[in-house]
Amino acid sequence: MVKVGIIGATGYAGGELVRILAKHPQAQIVWYGSKSYIGKKYYQVYRNMFQIVEDECLDDNLPELAKQVDVIFTATPQGYLASILTEEILSQVKIVDLSADYRIKDVAIYEKWYGIEHKSPQFIEEAVYGLCEINRSKVNADTRLIANPGCYTTCSILTIYPLVKEGLIDVNTIIVDAKSGTSGAGRGAKVPNLFCEVNESIKAYGVASHRHTPEIEEQLGYAGNCEVTLNFTPHLVPMNRGILATAYATLNKKADGSLPTQEEVRAAYDKYYKEEKFVRVLEAGECPETKWVEGSNYVDVNFVIDERTGRVIMMGAIDNLVKGAAGQAVQNMNLLFGLPEDMGLDLVPCFP
Amino acid sequence: MVKVGIIGATGYAGGELVRILAKHPQAQIVWYGSKSYIGKKYYQVYRNMFQIVEDECLDDNLPELAKQVDVIFTATPQGYLASILTEEILSQVKIVDLSADYRIKDVAIYEKWYGIEHKSPQFIEEAVYGLCEINRSKVNADTRLIANPGCYTTCSILTIYPLVKEGLIDVNTIIVDAKSGTSGAGRGAKVPNLFCEVNESIKAYGVASHRHTPEIEEQLGYAGNCEVTLNFTPHLVPMNRGILATAYATLNKKADGSLPTQEEVRAAYDKYYKEEKFVRVLEAGECPETKWVEGSNYVDVNFVIDERTGRVIMMGAIDNLVKGAAGQAVQNMNLLFGLPEDMGLDLVPCFP
Amino acid sequence: MVKVGIIGATGYAGGELVRILAKHPQAQIVWYGSKSYIGKKYYQVYRNMFQIVEDECLDDNLPELAKQVDVIFTATPQGYLASILTEEILSQVKIVDLSADYRIKDVAIYEKWYGIEHKSPQFIEEAVYGLCEINRSKVNADTRLIANPGCYTTCSILTIYPLVKEGLIDVNTIIVDAKSGTSGAGRGAKVPNLFCEVNESIKAYGVASHRHTPEIEEQLGYAGNCEVTLNFTPHLVPMNRGILATAYATLNKKADGSLPTQEEVRAAYDKYYKEEKFVRVLEAGECPETKWVEGSNYVDVNFVIDERTGRVIMMGAIDNLVKGAAGQAVQNMNLLFGLPEDMGLDLVPCFP
Amino acid sequence: MVKVGIIGATGYAGGELVRILAKHPQAQIVWYGSKSYIGKKYYQVYRNMFQIVEDECLDDNLPELAKQVDVIFTATPQGYLASILTEEILSQVKIVDLSADYRIKDVAIYEKWYGIEHKSPQFIEEAVYGLCEINRSKVNADTRLIANPGCYTTCSILTIYPLVKEGLIDVNTIIVDAKSGTSGAGRGAKVPNLFCEVNESIKAYGVASHRHTPEIEEQLGYAGNCEVTLNFTPHLVPMNRGILATAYATLNKKADGSLPTQEEVRAAYDKYYKEEKFVRVLEAGECPETKWVEGSNYVDVNFVIDERTGRVIMMGAIDNLVKGAAGQAVQNMNLLFGLPEDMGLDLVPCFP
Repeated sequence: MVKVGIIGATGYAGGELVRILAKHPQAQIVWYGSKSYIGKKYYQVYRNMFQIVEDECLDDNLPELAKQVDVIFTATPQGYLASILTEEILSQVKIVDLSADYRIKDVAIYEKWYGIEHKSPQFIEEAVYGLCEINRSKVNADTRLIANPGCYTTCSILTIYPLVKEGLIDVNTIIVDAKSGTSGAGRGAKVPNLFCEVNESIKAYGVASHRHTPEIEEQLGYAGNCEVTLNFTPHLVPMNRGILATAYATLNKKADGSLPTQEEVRAAYDKYYKEEKFVRVLEAGECPETKWVEGSNYVDVNFVIDERTGRVIMMGAIDNLVKGAAGQAVQNMNLLFGLPEDMGLDLVPCFP
Repeated sequence: MVKVGIIGATGYAGGELVRILAKHPQAQIVWYGSKSYIGKKYYQVYRNMFQIVEDECLDDNLPELAKQVDVIFTATPQGYLASILTEEILSQVKIVDLSADYRIKDVAIYEKWYGIEHKSPQFIEEAVYGLCEINRSKVNADTRLIANPGCYTTCSILTIYPLVKEGLIDVNTIIVDAKSGTSGAGRGAKVPNLFCEVNESIKAYGVASHRHTPEIEEQLGYAGNCEVTLNFTPHLVPMNRGILATAYATLNKKADGSLPTQEEVRAAYDKYYKEEKFVRVLEAGECPETKWVEGSNYVDVNFVIDERTGRVIMMGAIDNLVKGAAGQAVQNMNLLFGLPEDMGLDLVPCFP
Repeated sequence: MVKVGIIGATGYAGGELVRILAKHPQAQIVWYGSKSYIGKKYYQVYRNMFQIVEDECLDDNLPELAKQVDVIFTATPQGYLASILTEEILSQVKIVDLSADYRIKDVAIYEKWYGIEHKSPQFIEEAVYGLCEINRSKVNADTRLIANPGCYTTCSILTIYPLVKEGLIDVNTIIVDAKSGTSGAGRGAKVPNLFCEVNESIKAYGVASHRHTPEIEEQLGYAGNCEVTLNFTPHLVPMNRGILATAYATLNKKADGSLPTQEEVRAAYDKYYKEEKFVRVLEAGECPETKWVEGSNYVDVNFVIDERTGRVIMMGAIDNLVKGAAGQAVQNMNLLFGLPEDMGLDLVPCFP
Repeated sequence: MVKVGIIGATGYAGGELVRILAKHPQAQIVWYGSKSYIGKKYYQVYRNMFQIVEDECLDDNLPELAKQVDVIFTATPQGYLASILTEEILSQVKIVDLSADYRIKDVAIYEKWYGIEHKSPQFIEEAVYGLCEINRSKVNADTRLIANPGCYTTCSILTIYPLVKEGLIDVNTIIVDAKSGTSGAGRGAKVPNLFCEVNESIKAYGVASHRHTPEIEEQLGYAGNCEVTLNFTPHLVPMNRGILATAYATLNKKADGSLPTQEEVRAAYDKYYKEEKFVRVLEAGECPETKWVEGSNYVDVNFVIDERTGRVIMMGAIDNLVKGAAGQAVQNMNLLFGLPEDMGLDLVPCFP
């Protein structure tokens, strides 16, 4: 039984960790860390957990926690973990960090996009970017620190990855237009996230400046073994959960000047995802819908070739709180402890 | 392993049966009956089931089905099962009927409220009203036919039951004002159920004429050992899932002329529900919210005493597709086959 | 041209005042008071007003404002106006108060339900309860202070009023089950009003303790010339606008022991509303829906008689921000200044 | 007073025409055509119009209608008007066609994308594409036939137009990712448009094949005096109204190799829209939100330059039923009859 501690257990991602781990056969949460609700019963913060979780919220004492548990999930603001992480802690416990602190290898890029100084760059190198479908081999018993990928990035990267990896698209033409449910904005009490402000509306935000941009660029760069610079535009959608990424790129022409065929592009997706339980490449003509993956760890992907423009439109859908956060974190935990990768993640999408 | 057939597998209640049974450790669906989609892959009707269910939809041949399975769930229109059920079928297979055909003991009342002739009244007597928390003892290996309770009725009855049973309220004063998500209206293509017609609006419907009224009255009558006539008003709410029942009744005064106390009313709820896994009596002051039970088999109930008016306001919340339909049906199946009552129903409510 | 000042112009009710008055042919807003946004352009707070309103937000200096305008709308927290109102101000300017400060004649009841001391009870007596359909004769050039009715109360009173006035129902049996969109909760940044907390859920709140209860009781008491004590239960609905009141009462039997007929009850509604532009008594069998009045000053009402229980179910729908707040306030302003009562309120409900 | 007839008055666009024209000071609807509801009171189809419109729905007898009115709005399925339009009709009455029948000048393109034969191509040449901000000079007393632009196209074209016209972007790089509320799907009773299917989800549809694509291409081609081929991807959003277009294009470098500046791009927008009442170019940094234009005829546009990629991200928001359909149709009617262009369109956006 893996003993688990959570720092930031009362945010939406933390809540989803609790929902998933509550039924995980080989994990037990022993520390519900939440600075804002210390001493409160966890179910008083999330009433859905009444009679399911009886524990109280504790503080975020990382050194103490490190002694008591096997793995810590940090669902905390950017910069928090970096500011308190030490070699001593890492020598005692594994950490799956849901913040962005160790996702980006180039500390200068992190500091530029996040606008904060990185307080423990010495751990960036060893941190493994925990996108299991791509980096599975690096997530194992020897791994101490997992940088759990961002929600938009998980969806965007998995949607585009095979075509970059196989050299089917011109990486200089990639545009990602993404749409997210409102839980991605967190549980902070802010006017723009009020029901009446979000409901019945859609808007773009963080245009040309969203922090997930360099994360997508870095990972696709590894896939293509090249530098990638792209446009990423997030939008806020009046729904609770779900991210849809619609990505555009110009197909590289083949030697004979023709475009790759439907079958060739499909083969690229199948090459990387056919054996992946959590990635479902849809049947031709089916467009992913966020509702079809809600509550589950699935990524649904598909594509359409536009002969007229020579572009491919790639689409991917996830539940931002599951595959985009807590589910992926548990997937990493399973790999870290040698458990079946899908343990506790056998979640059937809920419709309607 | 219980072999299961579903007639009406592609309605919303049928879909929820599939979602729940897909992960039930002792049940296996072998027949996905759906007149409208014969020959189609089930996942083509419900894309969330892609790569989870590979079967095709079959017809609704009940006699054939009866030979192949241990239990049949009928999630069919009113009157359908009554029109085809025979002794021969019932001698071969257990049936959990999600329609109203066998819920009401007095066939005249059924025919009046449903406006159709009952074609097999001979089975009404033996049918067990499958509200497990109340009729558990009657749901067992000998039971052949379960009348699975309606969604509104499950919520209304469980909310009010202890106070009627304990004689704390005047049954002639009961008013149930209920609110339901739109999945309760089914998947039929009708203008009033279109997104733009339902969204951003609320309305009452079936005022003083909704078919769940006599079902609530009959069951509360058994509880109080008296005749119950009440008002039941359903409302349509712009959300997918959930039913909230707000019920009002005048408290019976005690011998000394005083009202029952908070503790006395609470004791009545605890008497019947303390040991019930799926009924959560909330802490004093907490009002049930449908979101807190979404996706689960829970019923959350609570009450407020109004000293000014001498009334008690009782509140209950369920997921209409789970405890109000498919979850309760599986709960009945478990009891029918001697399985743990909560097997496959260990569903944590999903928030947000 | 009536010169208008608004205190609290950046709340949702204030915003609706601006929306309506922006097109009022005889009114001009000259003061957009908003403590939180002083110095900001009004359109920077409400982007819908871009290129429509160019003014900046000003402070809430009531004495100064009183000198500059003909009428002040106060869309402010409870207790605010009462704490600063003076005879000098009232001698200079008319005030339409959208808060509850002067709605309740018995100051002890106000202080008990609102939990605050009333700082200027001397003005309560002269304040006119501005429910125009009922108190029209008291709203005129001589009136200085209007207590603009609450949203729930407007809807509840107008739904029930004719039956109390005509003695058709037993006032001791009245129960009001009301449902409101989320704009009623205001624009304050609070966790329970976040999109993800409200969306896809419904709950009761303020059960047996909501402040609109005594306001409804007082006004219906005037109508029936008796004391009225009733149950009022508000619910939060995942939609922006709209209130639906579903009210229950036992019909008084006629001398011959029979219930009032459909025609007799209808006649009561027609007696009071046939000439009322803003109250629409629907055709028999039609249930009011909030969407059908959205954006307008209409109240849609109707009723169903339940012969089985001897009760009448009364239903009413309004837009809480229009007839429930800003629209009614403008209706009062029109009467105060001798303008046509519906001037600027000729708003067609917006569907879908 | 302009006498108006509507064919297709009971669809969502028809309903919006009625809402707007009901308050138009110089127009009077005398014919509510609706094949499906002949003989029904119009308010029985749209209950919001109760006591506002008393007329009955009539058939779609175009020749008869042509004799009785000054202008006919056709809010009808593709191909309908083309199949019945004659020179005789056009000699009697002006027509504003909300369908696509006369929008595309090249009949082969129309037939290819719409998959139907064009039955009256002889009128295509004379039809004026009624995007008033661009083609105002062609909409006047001499014009007989207006092809009212599509919803997606109105939003997309107005968002991109100035940059194409001024040669600031490479037209071969244009990608439009558009998001629409569900009223765009019409009032037909189809399963995919049911509340529970749309709510809490987002999806792309018609990828690389949506019929508005050639319409956008043709109009932008006129602007740039060149052939334009682009990607257009519509998405369905769980809200009633609103379209947001997010458009991407590579900026053409200036002679010195630098990108156009913020001021230069802004100047292009101002050049074409500064005097346009219905186009609001937002302040720098503000992203359009559909909610801010809801219920109004406004188009809100803005842009962001991404120095990293050399692209400009252009954004535009409209209410699909107003500027995207009925509002623009009335704007055209006003021009056709020499009325002030904004008459009856002085609609303040409704928030929240």
